[in-house]
Amino acid sequence: MQNRKDEKIIYGRRIEKICRYLEKENIAAAVIEDKEGSRTANLRYLSGMPMDALLFIIPGKGAGREDKSILVPWDEILAGKIACADEIIGYTEFDRLFENAVSKLLEKEGIPAGSRVELPSALPHHSFVNFSGMEYLCRKTGFESNLAALRMVKDEEELAIIREGSRLTNRLLDELEMAVKKGEIHTEIDIALFIERRSRTLGCEGTGFETIAAGPDRSWGIHAFPLYTAGPFATKGMSLVDFGVNYKGYTTDITASFVKGPLSEKQEEMISLVEKAYTASSEMLAPGVTTMAVADKATDVFKKGGWVMPHALGHSYGLDVHEAPTLRNGKDPVVLEAGMVVTIEPGLYHEAEGGVRWENDFLITETGSECLTNSKIFHLID
Amino acid sequence: MQNRKDEKIIYGRRIEKICRYLEKENIAAAVIEDKEGSRTANLRYLSGMPMDALLFIIPGKGAGREDKSILVPWDEILAGKIACADEIIGYTEFDRLFENAVSKLLEKEGIPAGSRVELPSALPHHSFVNFSGMEYLCRKTGFESNLAALRMVKDEEELAIIREGSRLTNRLLDELEMAVKKGEIHTEIDIALFIERRSRTLGCEGTGFETIAAGPDRSWGIHAFPLYTAGPFATKGMSLVDFGVNYKGYTTDITASFVKGPLSEKQEEMISLVEKAYTASSEMLAPGVTTMAVADKATDVFKKGGWVMPHALGHSYGLDVHEAPTLRNGKDPVVLEAGMVVTIEPGLYHEAEGGVRWENDFLITETGSECLTNSKIFHLID
Repeated sequence: MQNRKDEKIIYGRRIEKICRYLEKENIAAAVIEDKEGSRTANLRYLSGMPMDALLFIIPGKGAGREDKSILVPWDEILAGKIACADEIIGYTEFDRLFENAVSKLLEKEGIPAGSRVELPSALPHHSFVNFSGMEYLCRKTGFESNLAALRMVKDEEELAIIREGSRLTNRLLDELEMAVKKGEIHTEIDIALFIERRSRTLGCEGTGFETIAAGPDRSWGIHAFPLYTAGPFATKGMSLVDFGVNYKGYTTDITASFVKGPLSEKQEEMISLVEKAYTASSEMLAPGVTTMAVADKATDVFKKGGWVMPHALGHSYGLDVHEAPTLRNGKDPVVLEAGMVVTIEPGLYHEAEGGVRWENDFLITETGSECLTNSKIFHLID
Repeated sequence: MQNRKDEKIIYGRRIEKICRYLEKENIAAAVIEDKEGSRTANLRYLSGMPMDALLFIIPGKGAGREDKSILVPWDEILAGKIACADEIIGYTEFDRLFENAVSKLLEKEGIPAGSRVELPSALPHHSFVNFSGMEYLCRKTGFESNLAALRMVKDEEELAIIREGSRLTNRLLDELEMAVKKGEIHTEIDIALFIERRSRTLGCEGTGFETIAAGPDRSWGIHAFPLYTAGPFATKGMSLVDFGVNYKGYTTDITASFVKGPLSEKQEEMISLVEKAYTASSEMLAPGVTTMAVADKATDVFKKGGWVMPHALGHSYGLDVHEAPTLRNGKDPVVLEAGMVVTIEPGLYHEAEGGVRWENDFLITETGSECLTNSKIFHLID
């Protein structure tokens, strides 16, 4: 853990960046809201508070300016222990009502009537129309998309955390492979709970998202439902496990497939195509290349093999498992930059044959890319 | 599992109810959207599809009318296997774009320009303003709040599922109590993964929400962060575990505390007050009583003891762990009705002493209430 002084510098630097954006846009205050049903990792990115709070960001103006962040948490004790903000005020002071907190805090901070105030981009229309007295904004392309763009390129502190999370992921995967090969693990539950337990004993907060463990009978689903069951894993056919560990808030995201013969011709074809698509697309990762070009490469491999790309090729990750940019065909390509991290995860799924997916995490470097994780399509002895 | 014919009757009955509301409001079509970051159990309630889909509901008009539901899923294979709708169209046909799907489907279904069309209540303001050509609505008090009101009183099929889920919860809790008392379980991870594994082997989809397991050092948090760690559980002081099982989509929600002496005077006081608040408030549960009256009872007990109620007393549950109504002080009281299910969960938390909470699930009956679950404050031998 960093000490609080270091944390103030890290979060302060991020607050400063977003405040200069707000100042340029002539916005007097911006509000982030994280709650059940509407989560945003921007809260943690800017304050260290993991969840259930509002965060007000008020840019200072002119020379000697002082930017200010005010955290309004649901759990004040937790916030006092781990969050980093210039001021912390319990949400109970505003009866835990969003509209109440916004209007009272703006008044308390002396924001003049008519000022531009940016509300959360996820704010429902019916709530937005209740606000008055300021020039309220709710924008798709606003301070939150600006934050998403900032978060695309990981800073030094984030990369150190992601590297350590990747190392722990690899260690866990090695142990998992061994346990499967030794026959110590037989079911989807075994797989998922091995990961759940080990991630915590390795010092992670837990898994980064709900583990998907699907044996040969269920791997046809892109996201198996339920995510794992008491059913068999790593028996004849194609099994897959999709997981990540949450280290200091940052998740990793890998998928390993375990295939066991005798395989059908169709299964061999699917595995071979996924390996080709993975290799061809991951080899392209470098600064200056577009996300679309990388995705198109994998789509081409599948198309030539007579298959259709069933989902996006990959995505960035960090505090959220899915962050911008997405590696997909079609519009909105993003040019890759050094400091971005992305997954490459081609997969093919067939209702009768099952599914196979191969996913690793890559860091875009100055000269190309570095694969941070060691996932594979593991071939088990028949 | 019910067979598909039964399912059509169950979902059809729910669709019919909401269609009569839409007809009364002169709404030609209503749209539900469930996606990562914006979940709504209304999707599953009306179609059986657990997640990641749009659902269009188009009420028939006049005599011989035929209501119609159209499901637009992200995973077509999964939808084909488990969902129930009049028509299923893959989201890929609309390039997985919400605005695209809405406009194209309304056109395909011949909804006349200018008709009233209700969009999801969670739709962000910036997305809402892109829609045109119809009289689009995004309302807090609209078809989704009407659905929430419908869902407040559980139907026969739901109550059968909830009863079975409660039975499995009780069985799991008995086993958990035994394992703790025998000293087979030592850590928060042990607790959480015992529940995770057992829920699935008992035939549940899994846990209903992420289990909170907090030993004496961490139970001061209303929702411990992280939710569970490798740290000790059920050692000297106050530990608590908050969990539910997901049976056929419906969760239960209980909290058991495990307290082990020698306890401090303050801890004894907290335990005694929580027990008093629990008993006094749960005894009031009956049709005709307001949620506020029940919550006020617990608040009074705490107040007389010199403590403040730190969170709502309880809430309904079902497909979501938190459903309307909430049992809290202040405004928006709801009158309890037979067929509602609610939790009662008073708790007290102290940064140095730890926390204690006691939560069970209650069904409101014609004459009073029935406690469905058997959670307790378990006193362990010093």
